[in-house]
Amino acid sequence: MKALKFENGRLFLAEAKIPQIADEVLVKVTTSGICNTDLEIVRGYAGFEGIIGHEFVGVVEKAPGAEKLIGKRVVGEINAGCGKCDRCRGNDARHCLNRTVLGIIGRDGAHAEFLSLPAENLLVVPNSITDEQAVFVEPLAAANAITEQVEIAQNTRVAVIGDGKLGILCARVLALKCERLVLIGKHRAKLDRAGAGNIEPVLLTDAKKFRRKFDVVVEASGSESGFGLALDIIRPRGKLVLKSTFKADAKPEMWRVVVDEITVVGSRCGRFEPAIKLLEDRSIDPSDLIDSEYDLSHGVAAMEAAAAKGAMKVLLRNGPAINR
Amino acid sequence: MKALKFENGRLFLAEAKIPQIADEVLVKVTTSGICNTDLEIVRGYAGFEGIIGHEFVGVVEKAPGAEKLIGKRVVGEINAGCGKCDRCRGNDARHCLNRTVLGIIGRDGAHAEFLSLPAENLLVVPNSITDEQAVFVEPLAAANAITEQVEIAQNTRVAVIGDGKLGILCARVLALKCERLVLIGKHRAKLDRAGAGNIEPVLLTDAKKFRRKFDVVVEASGSESGFGLALDIIRPRGKLVLKSTFKADAKPEMWRVVVDEITVVGSRCGRFEPAIKLLEDRSIDPSDLIDSEYDLSHGVAAMEAAAAKGAMKVLLRNGPAINR
Repeated sequence: MKALKFENGRLFLAEAKIPQIADEVLVKVTTSGICNTDLEIVRGYAGFEGIIGHEFVGVVEKAPGAEKLIGKRVVGEINAGCGKCDRCRGNDARHCLNRTVLGIIGRDGAHAEFLSLPAENLLVVPNSITDEQAVFVEPLAAANAITEQVEIAQNTRVAVIGDGKLGILCARVLALKCERLVLIGKHRAKLDRAGAGNIEPVLLTDAKKFRRKFDVVVEASGSESGFGLALDIIRPRGKLVLKSTFKADAKPEMWRVVVDEITVVGSRCGRFEPAIKLLEDRSIDPSDLIDSEYDLSHGVAAMEAAAAKGAMKVLLRNGPAINR
Repeated sequence: MKALKFENGRLFLAEAKIPQIADEVLVKVTTSGICNTDLEIVRGYAGFEGIIGHEFVGVVEKAPGAEKLIGKRVVGEINAGCGKCDRCRGNDARHCLNRTVLGIIGRDGAHAEFLSLPAENLLVVPNSITDEQAVFVEPLAAANAITEQVEIAQNTRVAVIGDGKLGILCARVLALKCERLVLIGKHRAKLDRAGAGNIEPVLLTDAKKFRRKFDVVVEASGSESGFGLALDIIRPRGKLVLKSTFKADAKPEMWRVVVDEITVVGSRCGRFEPAIKLLEDRSIDPSDLIDSEYDLSHGVAAMEAAAAKGAMKVLLRNGPAINR
């Protein structure tokens, strides 16, 4: 099968074997989405080698022991736990110390014709959700996780730093909970795209005016300076949600966290069910964030497009587009 | 009056005016304690100039409008808010953006014959508490604050990093809540002093064995490497309480906070009432942490003693010791 592979520091379209993992489900990938983590892996982050990609929607081809899944359109939780440790038995494979992660840790990923995942990782996608929406379930789940970690009420003053894909998804999800939300970014064009309603876009250069104003600040900029800005605009005892996993040479002023008694909440993945629900009931439609679509065979070019300045979501397709 | 002053980069015994602040209470200081923050101020931290010191017990001399305090033995909350802002009206002067802080921000401190504080900052010390215990109320309150920020149950696995004064106080307070607690430090002598019971002292060099083991880790080492060790020994989704306010050139690996979804809880000051209660009901007796006592006139030497390697609490006295 065709697959987008990162190996020996090089990204290339490979001819790979169709995955065959005992007791797992084989999924024919319809569409996959390029995430910033993919770009970071290609820069050497996390030391992963293999087929990259972890945002996908596909159709089940083989499902030993879970035959009713065959032919179903599915998305999949990307963390596969060992199944034996305390964390796995506590239903939290996402933090299993021996987990594999689709296209990120020890497991080939989604930018391929086929992928393999345990049956319990897969969720059937309702018919009302298009492929272009379903491919956002994974990042949408990550954005929505914030609402399970930090209480957001109607009158909670919330800011999101970062006008990239994840920042905008975070803003849209949180804006469902609070009256008004400020989205801070570097790019006027991206901010304008971020959606209207109760989301107020503010350019980074104007953000200093919000000195110690917000109850909750989400740092999703992926940039070193984001953490410092977050400390500037958060109120004492506020909650700072960290979404960026960049490897930076930054020296965050942690003493300010102590003096202002900030709570910093690390936030990575989220549960898929509520994300699917948000798409199903049309609370969120992320498909306007799609910039372009490439056939998988042009995956290297697609990755370049995704890395370009100002780029939003780039999709990879196996075969012709279905839903639009 | 005599006072220990830091000015123009120099620490010296000064002849200062007795403080006269309208509507405030004048306290004759009996005993004051030297805190690491005092040492950091003398190193230039926080840019404070004036009379240092913020841990004290004293007797009220003048109390305009609060005459019933006169002659009473008191300790005092060190943060004095503006009284007008949202935070002050919300009963949280500790985070007033315009606050002064005794001997730390914009207000002369406690290493002096007299100090001034608003009446509402003062708490009368019960007779059963000695001066040597009462002088610990401020750091004990800071340690006890953790129990209001993070839930500690019987079976919570807790580690405290740092065998200094604050680390040991944190360990003792938290050990009241949980079955067993690990105290990690560099110094065998300090660890041995840390108290027995359910506190297990572990040398830093042996701490790596606790890989991702603890639900709650308190970083009170004041050292750059403490944060990294905390990330090594905390479990995914654990709570990392930050107590150290050092200004370091450290580069904490914040991406690990994201990947393991750690919650970092900044923790500075605490309420005095529960700390007084802990001393009164003899749950905690910190007086064994006292290394030495100096007359205020030898304050500079006392600061040197407090800065010496392996030093624990050093007290300053106005006049002869009362309670021991």
